[in-house]
Amino acid sequence: MSTTNTYLVNGMTCGHCVMSVTEELTALDGVREVAVDLRPGGASTVTVESETPLDEGVIRTAVTEAGYALADTRP
Amino acid sequence: MSTTNTYLVNGMTCGHCVMSVTEELTALDGVREVAVDLRPGGASTVTVESETPLDEGVIRTAVTEAGYALADTRP
Repeated sequence: MSTTNTYLVNGMTCGHCVMSVTEELTALDGVREVAVDLRPGGASTVTVESETPLDEGVIRTAVTEAGYALADTRP
Repeated sequence: MSTTNTYLVNGMTCGHCVMSVTEELTALDGVREVAVDLRPGGASTVTVESETPLDEGVIRTAVTEAGYALADTRP
């Protein structure tokens, strides 16, 4: 079983940003895969596949630790 | 004695880009200090202080290795 959720993240501009966010999210317990659709100048789409549903607060904290901000709206 | 030169670099968008370029240029023989004025969406100004004048080809190669492009015009 697995669950896939998509988030919007502001402030990502380049491949380094993609790496930072991917690393931070991949390190979370239960996360299997992270995919980022980079949109410099806009909100990037971040897709997280995990074994069980993850609390949005956990995702928000990881994104903040990477140096970016989870957008309030969902894609 | 030292020499200071300024270059324009395209494609830099964030602090990670600044780190990459700074690391690559700082590693060059004779380089004392590197300063970057980041302009996302435009050409960033990169200032290099070295013991002796450096060949522009050497700078160009280092910038390319960091993943960016030296602009043809000087600031």
